[in-house]
Amino acid sequence: MKPSLIRMHQLYLYVVLLTLALSSIAAKADPLPSWNETETKTAIINFVKSVTNSEADTFVPQEDRIAVFDNDGTLWAEKPVYFQFMFAIDRLQAMADEDPSVLSSDVLKAAARNDMETVVQSGKAGLLEIVAATHSNLSVDAFQAEAGDWLASATHPDTGMVYSDMIFQPMLELLSYLRDEGFTTYIVSGGGVHFIRAFSESAYNVPSNQVIGSTGKSHYEVMDGKPTVMKDPGIAFIDDKEGKPVAIDTHIGKRPILAGGNSDGDFQMLEWTTAGEGPRLGLIVHHTDSEREWAYDRESHIGTLDRGLDEAEQRGWVVIDMAADWEQVWPQSP
Amino acid sequence: MKPSLIRMHQLYLYVVLLTLALSSIAAKADPLPSWNETETKTAIINFVKSVTNSEADTFVPQEDRIAVFDNDGTLWAEKPVYFQFMFAIDRLQAMADEDPSVLSSDVLKAAARNDMETVVQSGKAGLLEIVAATHSNLSVDAFQAEAGDWLASATHPDTGMVYSDMIFQPMLELLSYLRDEGFTTYIVSGGGVHFIRAFSESAYNVPSNQVIGSTGKSHYEVMDGKPTVMKDPGIAFIDDKEGKPVAIDTHIGKRPILAGGNSDGDFQMLEWTTAGEGPRLGLIVHHTDSEREWAYDRESHIGTLDRGLDEAEQRGWVVIDMAADWEQVWPQSP
Repeated sequence: MKPSLIRMHQLYLYVVLLTLALSSIAAKADPLPSWNETETKTAIINFVKSVTNSEADTFVPQEDRIAVFDNDGTLWAEKPVYFQFMFAIDRLQAMADEDPSVLSSDVLKAAARNDMETVVQSGKAGLLEIVAATHSNLSVDAFQAEAGDWLASATHPDTGMVYSDMIFQPMLELLSYLRDEGFTTYIVSGGGVHFIRAFSESAYNVPSNQVIGSTGKSHYEVMDGKPTVMKDPGIAFIDDKEGKPVAIDTHIGKRPILAGGNSDGDFQMLEWTTAGEGPRLGLIVHHTDSEREWAYDRESHIGTLDRGLDEAEQRGWVVIDMAADWEQVWPQSP
Repeated sequence: MKPSLIRMHQLYLYVVLLTLALSSIAAKADPLPSWNETETKTAIINFVKSVTNSEADTFVPQEDRIAVFDNDGTLWAEKPVYFQFMFAIDRLQAMADEDPSVLSSDVLKAAARNDMETVVQSGKAGLLEIVAATHSNLSVDAFQAEAGDWLASATHPDTGMVYSDMIFQPMLELLSYLRDEGFTTYIVSGGGVHFIRAFSESAYNVPSNQVIGSTGKSHYEVMDGKPTVMKDPGIAFIDDKEGKPVAIDTHIGKRPILAGGNSDGDFQMLEWTTAGEGPRLGLIVHHTDSEREWAYDRESHIGTLDRGLDEAEQRGWVVIDMAADWEQVWPQSP
């Protein structure tokens, strides 16, 4: 070899070695800096170490490292009501401004004048009517553009924060840590799949194909020569409670090894996940922080957590105490 | 550095360089060796080059390189009838041997005695009845184990080949080539998702979460203390024709840039895929090979290809002429 070639190769070698050294330093940094040094953090890190240690009999190959997370109340806030419902109300009011005839029932009229008492009294049927009126008769693309605009501009009535900022920093770190350790992270939410996809990539780094949610009816049509998937009124699938394991089976086709939720709507997902063989982790975000977020559980209409609290200990699920376990709640100060 | 350390580092450097050199040679080898050197092969390779060339304005980033393929007639054979239906008949007969009372209707009795004329005359309702009887009241895990056993042992009435060997070697190469070029390859089939997943990973290297298919009803239940997803009678979703774009939207959430099919059941999937902006590729496997496989199109009840043949040219879809374009059909000689 010519001397110049030898020098080039040496340089190349040093770059390779430096890269290896830096990546080994990075791996040792705290993967969960917004988590306090509590038993909860230790339990999570120990679980991840146990399934990624190829020497241990708890090792899980990368293709089976599937982690599923609820969205509302688990990855972002859900008070005073699910943010998707706030979007539906805002959209209904905007639609009514353009064409008052969309307010074709008492519950729609009540929603448009912000009479939430009447809306709540109308029960599930009323809520579904509001969702149907605001989530149909437009293309998926148009709907996701609307939802994306709203998420980036509308502000929360209590915090004044933009909704897409009301995600939990510790959970962002957990998602990222899991992915760094070879997990595939899915969202499995009772919320609408198209609504969540409007922000899941930018907020959580979760691509659209890893978002599972409730679905409305839809159909394919060539409109003015343009092939389009249109959203229709009516519910196709409710991804909640017993529906979550069914949706995971349909969509992923494998039982996860880690499930995170915050309400009894996630109970069956955690039950199914943690009943599998080998190491399993069930996580419940317990909203205990009335200062920085909200404090609620058994008595709350949104995000009711009752059976999960009763049975977490005997099932070995880790309950995240938001006030005690999280050093920081939001990515940015409100 | 000690001389021994320098030698070690030099050795390491040579290994790195050798690896780079070998991978560069491998990249230049023919990615589609079972395809004859025809315009079809050129069109496929040119498309892949156009979307992977980061200098070109046709470049598509890796996360958007989504390719979808029909299964029956596209990735494996489908004659004389869909193999899943052959499985259903075999399973029905095995079930009837154990308990004759499962044959609760005329069409089930006809199917059990191989009277296919009566079965065919019963139309779609009869076929669905046979599928419902053989694809329900067991867990997903148990069903997939049964299907996997059948696929690996039952043999085709004409070829004598095991069903899971009746996959198309050129399509295996295409799937593998696309993945090597950063594509994610999905199966989008009218067949049942649980049936396909019983062999998709081993046959096609397509993991369960990249299999989209028709779905039966199912439910989650804790049986004898064991959380289980159970298959129920009844259809939840038919992933065919207009259903394919809808299923792709629900499951992937993005429009593919490449779609491959073989029948008019794939028409809408190709139409939607190729109507998007930027480079798009639609592929139709035309069964023209009565020697090595089968020859059929417009008049066939299974895999009818009529509108697709009429419109392929004007839509710029590439029609694969099996007899002319494929140097080899099966992975192994029958």
